[in-house]
Amino acid sequence: MEIKESTSLIQPYSDFIDLDKVIFKDCKAHNVRHASDMKGYYKDAAMLEKLIERGDPLHYETFECQVPQEYGHLIYGLSKLQPGVVGDECFMTKGHYHTIIETGETYLCLEGQGYMLMKTQDGQVKAEKMERGSFVYVPPYWAHRSVNTGDTPLTTLFIYPAEAGHNYGDISQEGFLKRIFKRNGAIVIE
Amino acid sequence: MEIKESTSLIQPYSDFIDLDKVIFKDCKAHNVRHASDMKGYYKDAAMLEKLIERGDPLHYETFECQVPQEYGHLIYGLSKLQPGVVGDECFMTKGHYHTIIETGETYLCLEGQGYMLMKTQDGQVKAEKMERGSFVYVPPYWAHRSVNTGDTPLTTLFIYPAEAGHNYGDISQEGFLKRIFKRNGAIVIE
Repeated sequence: MEIKESTSLIQPYSDFIDLDKVIFKDCKAHNVRHASDMKGYYKDAAMLEKLIERGDPLHYETFECQVPQEYGHLIYGLSKLQPGVVGDECFMTKGHYHTIIETGETYLCLEGQGYMLMKTQDGQVKAEKMERGSFVYVPPYWAHRSVNTGDTPLTTLFIYPAEAGHNYGDISQEGFLKRIFKRNGAIVIE
Repeated sequence: MEIKESTSLIQPYSDFIDLDKVIFKDCKAHNVRHASDMKGYYKDAAMLEKLIERGDPLHYETFECQVPQEYGHLIYGLSKLQPGVVGDECFMTKGHYHTIIETGETYLCLEGQGYMLMKTQDGQVKAEKMERGSFVYVPPYWAHRSVNTGDTPLTTLFIYPAEAGHNYGDISQEGFLKRIFKRNGAIVIE
Protein backbone atom coordinates (compact mmCIF):
# COMPACT_ATOMS: atom_id res chain seq x y z
CA MET A 1 0.00 0.00 0.00
CA GLU A 2 1.29 3.46 -0.80
CA ILE A 3 0.41 6.46 1.30
CA LYS A 4 0.65 9.99 -0.10
CA GLU A 5 2.67 12.55 1.81
CA SER A 6 -0.24 14.93 2.11
CA THR A 7 -1.24 14.79 5.76
CA SER A 8 -2.84 18.08 6.81
CA LEU A 9 -1.36 20.15 9.62
CA ILE A 10 -4.33 21.17 11.77
CA GLN A 11 -4.63 22.75 15.22
CA PRO A 12 -4.94 20.50 18.30
CA TYR A 13 -8.30 20.54 19.98
CA SER A 14 -10.09 18.92 22.85
CA ASP A 15 -13.57 17.77 23.64
CA PHE A 16 -15.13 16.50 26.84
CA ILE A 17 -16.81 13.17 27.45
CA ASP A 18 -19.00 13.17 30.52
CA LEU A 19 -17.95 9.71 31.71
CA ASP A 20 -21.10 9.37 33.81
CA LYS A 21 -23.68 10.76 31.37
CA VAL A 22 -21.65 9.27 28.48
CA ILE A 23 -22.04 12.11 26.03
CA PHE A 24 -19.61 14.31 24.10
CA LYS A 25 -19.89 18.02 24.79
CA ASP A 26 -19.16 19.13 21.23
CA CYS A 27 -19.52 16.22 18.78
CA LYS A 28 -22.76 16.13 16.87
CA ALA A 29 -24.70 13.09 15.66
CA HIS A 30 -23.08 11.96 12.47
CA ASN A 31 -24.91 8.86 11.47
CA VAL A 32 -28.38 7.79 12.59
CA ARG A 33 -29.85 4.35 11.81
CA HIS A 34 -33.46 3.39 12.34
CA ALA A 35 -34.96 -0.10 12.18
CA SER A 36 -35.78 0.54 8.50
CA ASP A 37 -32.07 0.92 7.76
CA MET A 38 -31.45 -2.64 8.96
CA LYS A 39 -33.37 -4.62 6.32
CA GLY A 40 -31.59 -7.86 5.51
CA TYR A 41 -29.53 -7.97 8.69
CA TYR A 42 -31.78 -9.87 11.12
CA LYS A 43 -32.83 -13.49 10.90
CA ASP A 44 -36.54 -12.72 11.26
CA ALA A 45 -37.32 -10.24 8.46
CA ALA A 46 -41.07 -10.29 9.24
CA MET A 47 -40.48 -9.16 12.83
CA LEU A 48 -38.26 -6.33 11.60
CA GLU A 49 -41.09 -5.21 9.27
CA LYS A 50 -43.49 -5.15 12.24
CA LEU A 51 -41.03 -3.02 14.18
CA ILE A 52 -40.78 -0.60 11.26
CA GLU A 53 -44.61 -0.38 11.01
CA ARG A 54 -44.83 0.28 14.74
CA GLY A 55 -42.93 3.56 14.44
CA ASP A 56 -39.53 2.62 13.00
CA PRO A 57 -37.60 3.23 16.23
CA LEU A 58 -34.09 4.60 16.54
CA HIS A 59 -31.54 1.80 16.29
CA TYR A 60 -28.16 3.45 16.75
CA GLU A 61 -26.28 6.72 16.35
CA THR A 62 -22.67 7.76 16.12
CA PHE A 63 -21.29 11.07 17.35
CA GLU A 64 -18.09 11.70 15.48
CA CYS A 65 -15.60 14.54 15.36
CA GLN A 66 -14.45 15.95 12.07
CA VAL A 67 -10.86 15.05 11.28
CA PRO A 68 -9.28 14.98 7.79
CA GLN A 69 -9.71 11.47 6.35
CA GLU A 70 -6.02 11.13 5.64
CA TYR A 71 -3.17 8.87 6.72
CA GLY A 72 -1.84 9.78 10.17
CA HIS A 73 -5.04 11.32 11.53
CA LEU A 74 -7.31 9.39 13.91
CA ILE A 75 -11.11 9.48 13.84
CA TYR A 76 -12.88 9.19 17.17
CA GLY A 77 -16.43 9.26 18.38
CA LEU A 78 -19.16 7.59 20.39
CA SER A 79 -21.47 4.87 19.15
CA LYS A 80 -24.80 4.51 20.98
CA LEU A 81 -26.82 1.37 20.25
CA GLN A 82 -30.32 1.12 21.69
CA PRO A 83 -31.52 -1.98 23.59
CA GLY A 84 -34.15 -4.20 22.03
CA VAL A 85 -34.83 -7.36 20.05
CA VAL A 86 -36.07 -8.26 16.57
CA GLY A 87 -37.99 -11.40 17.44
CA ASP A 88 -35.45 -12.78 19.91
CA GLU A 89 -32.34 -11.43 18.18
CA CYS A 90 -30.55 -8.61 19.99
CA PHE A 91 -30.25 -5.17 18.39
CA MET A 92 -26.93 -4.75 16.60
CA THR A 93 -25.04 -2.42 14.31
CA LYS A 94 -24.60 -3.26 10.63
CA GLY A 95 -20.94 -4.04 11.12
CA HIS A 96 -18.19 -3.43 8.61
CA TYR A 97 -14.71 -4.18 7.43
CA HIS A 98 -12.48 -1.21 6.87
CA THR A 99 -12.02 -0.32 3.21
CA ILE A 100 -8.28 -0.36 3.91
CA ILE A 101 -8.65 -3.76 5.51
CA GLU A 102 -5.24 -3.74 7.20
CA THR A 103 -6.35 -1.08 9.72
CA GLY A 104 -7.56 -1.86 13.27
CA GLU A 105 -9.83 -0.06 15.73
CA THR A 106 -10.14 0.32 19.49
CA TYR A 107 -13.38 0.39 21.50
CA LEU A 108 -13.83 1.46 25.11
CA CYS A 109 -17.26 0.57 26.48
CA LEU A 110 -18.69 3.36 28.60
CA GLU A 111 -22.15 1.99 29.42
CA GLY A 112 -24.41 -0.98 28.79
CA GLN A 113 -23.96 -4.70 28.21
CA GLY A 114 -23.17 -6.50 25.01
CA TYR A 115 -20.61 -8.02 22.68
CA MET A 116 -18.21 -6.96 20.01
CA LEU A 117 -18.73 -9.62 17.35
CA MET A 118 -15.80 -9.97 14.95
CA LYS A 119 -14.99 -12.08 11.90
CA THR A 120 -12.36 -12.48 9.22
CA GLN A 121 -12.92 -13.09 5.51
CA ASP A 122 -11.71 -16.68 5.93
CA GLY A 123 -14.38 -17.47 8.52
CA GLN A 124 -12.78 -16.96 11.94
CA VAL A 125 -15.29 -15.57 14.46
CA LYS A 126 -14.81 -14.06 17.89
CA ALA A 127 -17.14 -12.39 20.39
CA GLU A 128 -15.70 -10.18 23.14
CA LYS A 129 -17.99 -9.25 26.02
CA MET A 130 -18.49 -5.56 26.71
CA GLU A 131 -19.50 -3.69 29.82
CA ARG A 132 -18.46 -0.33 31.29
CA GLY A 133 -14.66 -0.31 31.22
CA SER A 134 -14.15 -3.08 28.65
CA PHE A 135 -11.47 -2.17 26.16
CA VAL A 136 -11.66 -4.20 22.95
CA TYR A 137 -8.91 -4.29 20.35
CA VAL A 138 -10.23 -5.06 16.87
CA PRO A 139 -7.07 -5.96 14.92
CA PRO A 140 -6.56 -5.34 11.20
CA TYR A 141 -8.62 -7.64 8.89
CA TRP A 142 -11.47 -8.21 11.38
CA ALA A 143 -15.01 -7.04 10.52
CA HIS A 144 -16.78 -5.85 13.66
CA ARG A 145 -20.31 -5.30 14.89
CA SER A 146 -21.70 -4.24 18.30
CA VAL A 147 -24.58 -6.23 19.80
CA ASN A 148 -26.62 -4.88 22.72
CA THR A 149 -27.68 -7.69 25.08
CA GLY A 150 -28.76 -5.39 27.93
CA ASP A 151 -31.71 -3.19 28.80
CA THR A 152 -29.96 0.16 28.44
CA PRO A 153 -28.01 1.80 25.58
CA LEU A 154 -24.63 0.26 24.76
CA THR A 155 -22.22 3.15 24.30
CA THR A 156 -18.63 2.84 23.15
CA LEU A 157 -15.79 5.25 22.38
CA PHE A 158 -14.18 4.22 19.09
CA ILE A 159 -10.87 5.30 17.55
CA TYR A 160 -9.52 4.26 14.16
CA PRO A 161 -7.07 5.46 11.51
CA ALA A 162 -8.74 8.26 9.55
CA GLU A 163 -7.95 6.77 6.14
CA ALA A 164 -9.56 3.40 6.99
CA GLY A 165 -13.01 3.88 5.42
CA HIS A 166 -16.02 1.58 5.87
CA ASN A 167 -16.97 -1.43 3.81
CA TYR A 168 -20.55 -2.41 4.65
CA GLY A 169 -21.17 -4.27 1.43
CA ASP A 170 -19.28 -7.46 2.19
CA ILE A 171 -21.03 -7.89 5.54
CA SER A 172 -24.48 -7.37 4.04
CA GLN A 173 -23.61 -10.35 1.80
CA GLU A 174 -21.58 -12.53 4.18
CA GLY A 175 -23.32 -11.90 7.48
CA PHE A 176 -21.34 -12.62 10.65
CA LEU A 177 -21.69 -16.44 10.88
CA LYS A 178 -22.95 -16.06 14.46
CA ARG A 179 -26.03 -14.30 15.82
CA ILE A 180 -26.85 -13.29 19.39
CA PHE A 181 -30.29 -13.96 20.89
CA LYS A 182 -32.08 -13.36 24.17
CA ARG A 183 -34.14 -16.40 25.12
CA ASN A 184 -35.91 -16.72 28.47
CA GLY A 185 -33.57 -14.11 29.89
CA ALA A 186 -30.40 -15.93 28.77
CA ILE A 187 -27.96 -14.74 26.09
CA VAL A 188 -27.44 -17.36 23.36
CA ILE A 189 -24.71 -17.09 20.72
CA GLU A 190 -25.26 -19.43 17.79
CA MET B 1 5.78 7.52 2.64
CA GLU B 2 5.62 3.94 1.60
CA ILE B 3 4.05 1.27 3.78
CA LYS B 4 4.85 -2.41 3.37
CA GLU B 5 1.97 -4.82 2.91
CA SER B 6 2.99 -6.88 5.92
CA THR B 7 0.39 -6.15 8.56
CA SER B 8 0.06 -9.12 10.92
CA LEU B 9 -3.26 -10.91 11.32
CA ILE B 10 -3.67 -11.41 15.08
CA GLN B 11 -6.59 -12.49 17.28
CA PRO B 12 -8.88 -9.84 18.77
CA TYR B 13 -8.62 -9.37 22.50
CA SER B 14 -10.03 -7.25 25.23
CA ASP B 15 -8.85 -5.72 28.46
CA PHE B 16 -10.69 -3.92 31.21
CA ILE B 17 -10.11 -0.41 32.53
CA ASP B 18 -11.61 0.19 35.92
CA LEU B 19 -12.90 3.67 35.13
CA ASP B 20 -13.07 4.55 38.82
CA LYS B 21 -9.78 3.03 40.02
CA VAL B 22 -8.21 3.95 36.64
CA ILE B 23 -6.16 0.85 36.12
CA PHE B 24 -5.89 -1.78 33.38
CA LYS B 25 -6.62 -5.32 34.46
CA ASP B 26 -4.02 -6.96 32.19
CA CYS B 27 -1.53 -4.39 30.89
CA LYS B 28 1.77 -4.32 32.70
CA ALA B 29 4.04 -1.35 33.37
CA HIS B 30 6.01 -0.74 30.22
CA ASN B 31 8.05 2.31 30.90
CA VAL B 32 8.95 3.79 34.27
CA ARG B 33 10.62 7.19 34.68
CA HIS B 34 12.08 8.50 37.89
CA ALA B 35 13.27 12.04 38.62
CA SER B 36 16.77 10.97 37.59
CA ASP B 37 15.50 10.21 34.08
CA MET B 38 14.43 13.85 33.68
CA LYS B 39 17.81 15.60 33.75
CA GLY B 40 17.86 18.55 31.39
CA TYR B 41 14.09 18.92 31.18
CA TYR B 42 13.30 21.30 34.05
CA LYS B 43 14.30 24.95 34.34
CA ASP B 44 15.83 24.49 37.81
CA ALA B 45 18.43 21.75 37.42
CA ALA B 46 19.67 22.19 41.02
CA MET B 47 16.19 21.52 42.45
CA LEU B 48 15.92 18.38 40.33
CA GLU B 49 19.26 17.20 41.74
CA LYS B 50 17.94 17.73 45.27
CA LEU B 51 14.85 15.68 44.42
CA ILE B 52 17.06 12.89 43.09
CA GLU B 53 19.18 12.96 46.26
CA ARG B 54 16.06 12.83 48.40
CA GLY B 55 15.09 9.38 47.07
CA ASP B 56 14.68 9.84 43.31
CA PRO B 57 10.88 9.52 43.37
CA LEU B 58 8.73 7.93 40.70
CA HIS B 59 7.86 10.45 37.99
CA TYR B 60 5.60 8.62 35.56
CA GLU B 61 4.73 5.18 34.21
CA THR B 62 3.00 3.85 31.14
CA PHE B 63 0.99 0.63 31.03
CA GLU B 64 0.93 -0.49 27.43
CA CYS B 65 -0.47 -3.52 25.63
CA GLN B 66 1.66 -5.43 23.19
CA VAL B 67 0.57 -4.93 19.59
CA PRO B 68 2.74 -5.45 16.49
CA GLN B 69 4.46 -2.15 15.69
CA GLU B 70 3.22 -2.19 12.10
CA TYR B 71 1.00 -0.04 9.92
CA GLY B 72 -2.70 -0.59 10.61
CA HIS B 73 -2.36 -1.66 14.24
CA LEU B 74 -3.07 0.73 17.11
CA ILE B 75 -1.08 0.92 20.34
CA TYR B 76 -3.01 1.80 23.47
CA GLY B 77 -2.23 2.17 27.13
CA LEU B 78 -2.43 4.30 30.24
CA SER B 79 0.02 7.01 31.23
CA LYS B 80 0.19 7.87 34.93
CA LEU B 81 2.09 11.04 35.89
CA GLN B 82 2.67 11.76 39.57
CA PRO B 83 1.89 15.15 41.13
CA GLY B 84 4.74 17.35 42.31
CA VAL B 85 7.02 20.25 41.48
CA VAL B 86 10.69 20.77 40.68
CA GLY B 87 11.17 24.14 42.32
CA ASP B 88 7.87 25.64 41.20
CA GLU B 89 7.65 23.84 37.84
CA CYS B 90 4.99 21.16 37.61
CA PHE B 91 5.95 17.52 37.02
CA MET B 92 5.75 16.60 33.35
CA THR B 93 6.57 13.84 30.90
CA LYS B 94 9.56 14.14 28.58
CA GLY B 95 7.32 14.67 25.58
CA HIS B 96 8.02 13.54 22.05
CA TYR B 97 7.31 13.85 18.38
CA HIS B 98 6.40 10.65 16.60
CA THR B 99 9.24 9.25 14.49
CA ILE B 100 6.74 9.10 11.64
CA ILE B 101 5.82 12.70 12.30
CA GLU B 102 2.63 12.65 10.21
CA THR B 103 0.83 10.46 12.79
CA GLY B 104 -1.54 11.78 15.48
CA GLU B 105 -2.61 10.52 18.89
CA THR B 106 -5.70 10.68 21.09
CA TYR B 107 -5.78 11.13 24.88
CA LEU B 108 -8.71 10.60 27.20
CA CYS B 109 -8.04 11.92 30.70
CA LEU B 110 -9.36 9.56 33.38
CA GLU B 111 -8.20 11.30 36.55
CA GLY B 112 -6.28 14.31 37.79
CA GLN B 113 -5.72 17.87 36.60
CA GLY B 114 -3.24 19.14 34.06
CA TYR B 115 -2.42 20.15 30.54
CA MET B 116 -1.44 18.56 27.27
CA LEU B 117 1.29 20.86 26.05
CA MET B 118 1.89 20.68 22.29
CA LYS B 119 4.25 22.29 19.79
CA THR B 120 5.23 22.11 16.15
CA GLN B 121 8.72 22.25 14.68
CA ASP B 122 8.02 25.77 13.37
CA GLY B 123 7.22 27.08 16.84
CA GLN B 124 3.45 26.92 17.26
CA VAL B 125 2.47 26.08 20.85
CA LYS B 126 -0.85 25.02 22.34
CA ALA B 127 -1.91 23.89 25.82
CA GLU B 128 -5.18 21.95 26.24
CA LYS B 129 -6.55 21.63 29.77
CA MET B 130 -7.17 18.10 31.03
CA GLU B 131 -9.46 16.74 33.71
CA ARG B 132 -11.49 13.53 34.00
CA GLY B 133 -13.37 13.22 30.70
CA SER B 134 -11.22 15.57 28.64
CA PHE B 135 -10.52 14.13 25.22
CA VAL B 136 -7.53 15.73 23.49
CA TYR B 137 -6.71 15.25 19.84
CA VAL B 138 -2.98 15.62 19.13
CA PRO B 139 -2.86 16.03 15.34
CA PRO B 140 0.01 14.88 13.13
CA TYR B 141 3.23 16.97 13.42
CA TRP B 142 2.59 18.11 17.04
CA ALA B 143 5.04 17.10 19.79
CA HIS B 144 3.17 16.51 23.03
CA ARG B 145 3.88 16.39 26.75
CA SER B 146 1.59 15.91 29.78
CA VAL B 147 1.91 18.30 32.73
CA ASN B 148 0.36 17.54 36.11
CA THR B 149 -0.90 20.71 37.82
CA GLY B 150 -2.99 18.89 40.46
CA ASP B 151 -2.39 17.09 43.74
CA THR B 152 -3.23 13.57 42.50
CA PRO B 153 -1.89 11.43 39.63
CA LEU B 154 -2.80 12.57 36.12
CA THR B 155 -3.85 9.45 34.22
CA THR B 156 -4.68 9.33 30.53
CA LEU B 157 -5.66 6.63 28.04
CA PHE B 158 -3.59 7.09 24.89
CA ILE B 159 -4.05 5.55 21.43
CA TYR B 160 -1.75 6.02 18.44
CA PRO B 161 -0.83 4.28 15.17
CA ALA B 162 1.49 1.37 16.00
CA GLU B 163 4.11 2.33 13.43
CA ALA B 164 4.45 5.90 14.78
CA GLY B 165 7.52 5.50 17.00
CA HIS B 166 8.86 8.05 19.49
CA ASN B 167 11.36 10.81 18.86
CA TYR B 168 12.53 12.18 22.22
CA GLY B 169 15.78 13.64 20.89
CA ASP B 170 14.37 16.73 19.22
CA ILE B 171 12.45 17.76 22.34
CA SER B 172 15.46 17.32 24.61
CA GLN B 173 17.15 19.89 22.33
CA GLU B 174 14.25 22.20 21.48
CA GLY B 175 12.26 22.18 24.72
CA PHE B 176 8.60 23.13 24.52
CA LEU B 177 8.89 26.97 24.43
CA LYS B 178 6.42 27.16 27.31
CA ARG B 179 6.68 25.86 30.88
CA ILE B 180 3.96 25.42 33.49
CA PHE B 181 4.47 26.56 37.09
CA LYS B 182 2.54 26.56 40.34
CA ARG B 183 3.02 29.85 42.17
CA ASN B 184 1.08 30.77 45.29
CA GLY B 185 -1.53 28.18 44.35
CA ALA B 186 -2.05 29.58 40.84
CA ILE B 187 -1.09 27.86 37.59
CA VAL B 188 1.18 30.03 35.44
CA ILE B 189 2.03 29.17 31.81
CA GLU B 190 5.00 31.13 30.52
